[in-house]
Amino acid sequence: MLKKMLKVLLSLTLLVGFAGVAQAEMTREEYAIKFRRSSFTTMTWYMGAMSRMVKGEMTYDKALFARNAEYVAFLSKLPKDGFIPGTESGDTKAKPEIWSKADKFKDANDNMEKETAKLAELAKVGNFDDLKEQYGKMQKTCKVCHEEFKKKAD
Amino acid sequence: MLKKMLKVLLSLTLLVGFAGVAQAEMTREEYAIKFRRSSFTTMTWYMGAMSRMVKGEMTYDKALFARNAEYVAFLSKLPKDGFIPGTESGDTKAKPEIWSKADKFKDANDNMEKETAKLAELAKVGNFDDLKEQYGKMQKTCKVCHEEFKKKAD
Repeated sequence: MLKKMLKVLLSLTLLVGFAGVAQAEMTREEYAIKFRRSSFTTMTWYMGAMSRMVKGEMTYDKALFARNAEYVAFLSKLPKDGFIPGTESGDTKAKPEIWSKADKFKDANDNMEKETAKLAELAKVGNFDDLKEQYGKMQKTCKVCHEEFKKKAD
Repeated sequence: MLKKMLKVLLSLTLLVGFAGVAQAEMTREEYAIKFRRSSFTTMTWYMGAMSRMVKGEMTYDKALFARNAEYVAFLSKLPKDGFIPGTESGDTKAKPEIWSKADKFKDANDNMEKETAKLAELAKVGNFDDLKEQYGKMQKTCKVCHEEFKKKAD
């Protein structure tokens, strides 16, 4: 009996597959929240060096800035995939306005994608004054969203 | 006095800048660990639908498979940026072999990038049998790394 149960368990594990195992204990909604928070963390990481360059705390490195800007532009497309129905509560700072003002949230997302894409384009050219200006414009799209759609504290 | 402290605190906050605020309480090493774990979570999320299609649990959707494969290929380039010196311990399952066998770890990373890139290329073409085969090859590169470089439990 135990042997049969183990066999079933093993088959199930193989069925769920490798990628699924780590997330197997989470509901799809919990996993979506974890994913979207992770995607924001990943994106923010690549803003670090750009931010330091813009503030003059680090020497401007054209190649590094351009790579990070490209990464951020790409990563900005991801978080929206995690705001699926049923993820309004849980381990999240998401405000209900994300769903009650869905059009406005979409606009905020679109703006982030647009301004990060512009930054990536300008970063290839490498005029540092343009980059500073565009970095500020991009940052504003972050701020708008954090103020309107993200709770301040845990 | 309190007013002055608040003013200094405010200036410091502005100096650190928006992107830095959320991570301000972490050391760079703690942040790097958080980043790399987040980048893996983000990548794994996009494997979900592909995995279900490959296992026949979901109808093959060429556009979705191709998009996710492209995302995974891109995301596979990121985690390595988080294995900076000083991140051998902390909130991590990283094995010491990542640093003591750095060449082997680099090969494992390169293999993941290579096989995810191949999957993304094949996904544009859309021959499902090829995709199943290549998905398996990609998965093996995950397994190798998890077995040799990742601790099993927390």
